[in-house]
Amino acid sequence: MATALATKPEMIQDDGLADEDTPFIFNAWYVACLSDDLETGKPLARKLLGVNVMLYRTSSGEVVAMRDRCPHRSFPLSASTVEGDDVVCGYHGIRYGPDGACKAVPTQKHAPRAMRVQTYTVRETSPLVWIWMGDPLRDNKTPLPPCGWATDAEGWALSTGSMTLNASYVFLHENLLDLSHLSFLHKNTFGTPDYAAAPFSTELSGDAIVVRRVVAPTRLPVLYADPLDMHGNAARIVTSTYYSPGLSVSAVILQNLDLPQEARTDHHIRTAQLVTPQDKNNVLYHFVIARDFVKDDARTGNDILVGIKAAFDEDAFALESLARIRREDGTPFAERSISSDKAGVMLRRRLRAEAEAEHA
Amino acid sequence: MATALATKPEMIQDDGLADEDTPFIFNAWYVACLSDDLETGKPLARKLLGVNVMLYRTSSGEVVAMRDRCPHRSFPLSASTVEGDDVVCGYHGIRYGPDGACKAVPTQKHAPRAMRVQTYTVRETSPLVWIWMGDPLRDNKTPLPPCGWATDAEGWALSTGSMTLNASYVFLHENLLDLSHLSFLHKNTFGTPDYAAAPFSTELSGDAIVVRRVVAPTRLPVLYADPLDMHGNAARIVTSTYYSPGLSVSAVILQNLDLPQEARTDHHIRTAQLVTPQDKNNVLYHFVIARDFVKDDARTGNDILVGIKAAFDEDAFALESLARIRREDGTPFAERSISSDKAGVMLRRRLRAEAEAEHA
Amino acid sequence: MATALATKPEMIQDDGLADEDTPFIFNAWYVACLSDDLETGKPLARKLLGVNVMLYRTSSGEVVAMRDRCPHRSFPLSASTVEGDDVVCGYHGIRYGPDGACKAVPTQKHAPRAMRVQTYTVRETSPLVWIWMGDPLRDNKTPLPPCGWATDAEGWALSTGSMTLNASYVFLHENLLDLSHLSFLHKNTFGTPDYAAAPFSTELSGDAIVVRRVVAPTRLPVLYADPLDMHGNAARIVTSTYYSPGLSVSAVILQNLDLPQEARTDHHIRTAQLVTPQDKNNVLYHFVIARDFVKDDARTGNDILVGIKAAFDEDAFALESLARIRREDGTPFAERSISSDKAGVMLRRRLRAEAEAEHA
Repeated sequence: MATALATKPEMIQDDGLADEDTPFIFNAWYVACLSDDLETGKPLARKLLGVNVMLYRTSSGEVVAMRDRCPHRSFPLSASTVEGDDVVCGYHGIRYGPDGACKAVPTQKHAPRAMRVQTYTVRETSPLVWIWMGDPLRDNKTPLPPCGWATDAEGWALSTGSMTLNASYVFLHENLLDLSHLSFLHKNTFGTPDYAAAPFSTELSGDAIVVRRVVAPTRLPVLYADPLDMHGNAARIVTSTYYSPGLSVSAVILQNLDLPQEARTDHHIRTAQLVTPQDKNNVLYHFVIARDFVKDDARTGNDILVGIKAAFDEDAFALESLARIRREDGTPFAERSISSDKAGVMLRRRLRAEAEAEHA
Repeated sequence: MATALATKPEMIQDDGLADEDTPFIFNAWYVACLSDDLETGKPLARKLLGVNVMLYRTSSGEVVAMRDRCPHRSFPLSASTVEGDDVVCGYHGIRYGPDGACKAVPTQKHAPRAMRVQTYTVRETSPLVWIWMGDPLRDNKTPLPPCGWATDAEGWALSTGSMTLNASYVFLHENLLDLSHLSFLHKNTFGTPDYAAAPFSTELSGDAIVVRRVVAPTRLPVLYADPLDMHGNAARIVTSTYYSPGLSVSAVILQNLDLPQEARTDHHIRTAQLVTPQDKNNVLYHFVIARDFVKDDARTGNDILVGIKAAFDEDAFALESLARIRREDGTPFAERSISSDKAGVMLRRRLRAEAEAEHA
Repeated sequence: MATALATKPEMIQDDGLADEDTPFIFNAWYVACLSDDLETGKPLARKLLGVNVMLYRTSSGEVVAMRDRCPHRSFPLSASTVEGDDVVCGYHGIRYGPDGACKAVPTQKHAPRAMRVQTYTVRETSPLVWIWMGDPLRDNKTPLPPCGWATDAEGWALSTGSMTLNASYVFLHENLLDLSHLSFLHKNTFGTPDYAAAPFSTELSGDAIVVRRVVAPTRLPVLYADPLDMHGNAARIVTSTYYSPGLSVSAVILQNLDLPQEARTDHHIRTAQLVTPQDKNNVLYHFVIARDFVKDDARTGNDILVGIKAAFDEDAFALESLARIRREDGTPFAERSISSDKAGVMLRRRLRAEAEAEHA
């Protein structure tokens, strides 16, 4: 009985959580692609929020996003031709302007007004291309998620990358908010054994959900220890922040505890985790990694990136494995949450509520 | 407002159209295979109109078609043995005659009368093997679709081929009736830029839907220009005719306009397009190509065939792409038709009505 | 009319039969794996009766079976770590004992009592590992299916093997009870032409369904004729016995009929066919083959095993083919049974009744 009382407060209420069956949230900014993914005149196909989308860059460098489906007979516009700033369908040659309006039909004199490709608002903050697929009246009222440091190299060395995971975006966000898994899933990459048990706090900061974990004294994984030459006692202070369905940020401070207090420097490494649902079983994951140490050493920078990508592959393995089990295991199953799920549960409850409000 | 009035007549009413979800039309002749596909004593498996069918040639050369499923325990008869004119199931040895009747069961004295494989009427007009899978009382009342020139080589050089497309047969038929796509989808094979904008007419001729397009003066694609040595001004007159769910024909006349009128010859090339639905997402496409020029030059004939097949691969790409989009894109979407869809829309409306009448 | 009367008694009533859509029977022992499949400290993943199961061997050699899904966030425990006798989830490090109870959560002080992995009763009779996934109060009351000879080598040379078939376990059992298919499906391996027409009896022996077939005089297939040097007249007496959803046994006696009666020896070869449903379209098939002849000749033993496995591959081909047809052929179809189906139909009726009783 004593144990029951003791454990109870550490159990989390986990009803009403978003999962792979929750509808997508359209009224949010998502990263559609990286700036470098777009060559002028070459269309790019992307499945975003369950919709086939085509993106291209006009002659003036603007990015256009439209539905990847000709309104005539559903031919993919991403397999069509960009001529100047127009798209000419590769099947029957129907021409659309960057605003989606039909400009010409080869077999007839007039372009029908009713024939129109749906377009989406795009904002580019290089290296990120953002898309708004929700209510067209709300894009201007909704600021881009806050990650200016990831789009302005001043003071930072930036690396970018992307991957697709066969998993729901919901569980990727949850993964990013509870880094206690570093000691287990990432024990061979950027985790250390003491990470999971380190004290952490969960709080709301405005709309952001913030988890802060102080691991100190600790040892750094080789990934950080080598470039910083910090193989002794260190502090690793990690802040994970969920900002919106399209952005979560992890910000890490590394300190050398073997130096006297006054000689210690904060070394920073931050990752903008740009999360874009593709469909219920797939998520597009772009990331921008910024560091303020060994900034000009390309080789070291590459080593760090390789190490982080190896860890992301471990996340992919975990998320894809549990997605497969959730999909294939027909027997009823109720997951249970633990104390470190506080932020994740808060996030999933919010995603569920926002999705339901949007689709109400 | 003026534009709206002007464009209106060029829009086509496109309700009640057949698509991949429309049931198949059984009361029609379809090509099941080519004569050469059948070796005596060797069964051939085909999925036709959603049914697994097995075909074989008897000792006297007759073609037998029956359901590809032993009535006992569903073993595929196409994986069984043809012994003389009988089929002996490869699992338990149950023997069926070419009429589908059970002739022997190894483990018992008498063959049960109730055990019977469903058979289908077959007609062979070499190189084509036709099957009737509809009302057994109507096969004799329904003539084969008219393409005698494709089954009698007199005066023609014939080539045959086949392919399977991951697309509904409905959209293949529609594709074949609106060749304005030659200027775009086939711009690298048998299309020319002026093709799409050439004048065309759509009419009914009995039950046939006929589209006639006169492209003149024009240049011929290399595919025709080289064998005919016709690199200057030419006329290209194309008649596309839909006859039945199993047959569409394209007939092309090519003329050298640089010759004086009296010296001009009509060169013909015709394609019998033999369309056989397999299931809602797959269509079997046989074709017989007949030409009356450079008839005895095997190499040139082969060049033409290679060129045409390259174009058919482009059709496959288009039809498979739009089928995939129609299948995967969950978001509601209403396609719109244009003036050149008049024949296709007529055809799809008829397929829908015939299917509904049959399944009423 | 005379024929109708004659054939009628040979038709079998085949309503109420189990098929791929019948729910699984949980209150039965099934082989989960072979003893050799389990290395100490290395988890094994198995889909059994539709459930993802994980098995491992503890330091003392006991086999533990539990659901292959962490109660926290569904990570596969089979991709986790066995530490001592515990399982430590590879995602967040939650620790479970061999009884499924949660022993530790890294991010909190107390292990929540409510967090528990479902475990299953296991019995090992080497080389077989049995699992009970049904009512936990009934495991001790239900004896293991009778195949002691397959788990105790005394007097026998044993061989084991396993395969997965893309077919329902129901049709594997039916296949094993009607060996008349040896003359057809296995004509190139262990069948002979006269096998199917040999007299057979079907009877109940307690709960067991027994089919006995005497093929004599006959010739033996090379598989047996060579090791026994028995190339003349022989008797082949085969008893097929269905014991439970997890076990069917075939027992063969081979005699040399060219010897005088008093000089004849019975040579035995038995196969324990261990049938474990995985899901509606897949069955795990373990087998133990025991023979009492050329026991110490490894090469001959291997030849026999290779021959039998070739025959099992033919069964796999048949069962997978008919499963595919049953799955893909949407058109209504009613299979018909023949006299040799008596045992199979009895079995399938019983499986259906047991499944319905369990799920009532």
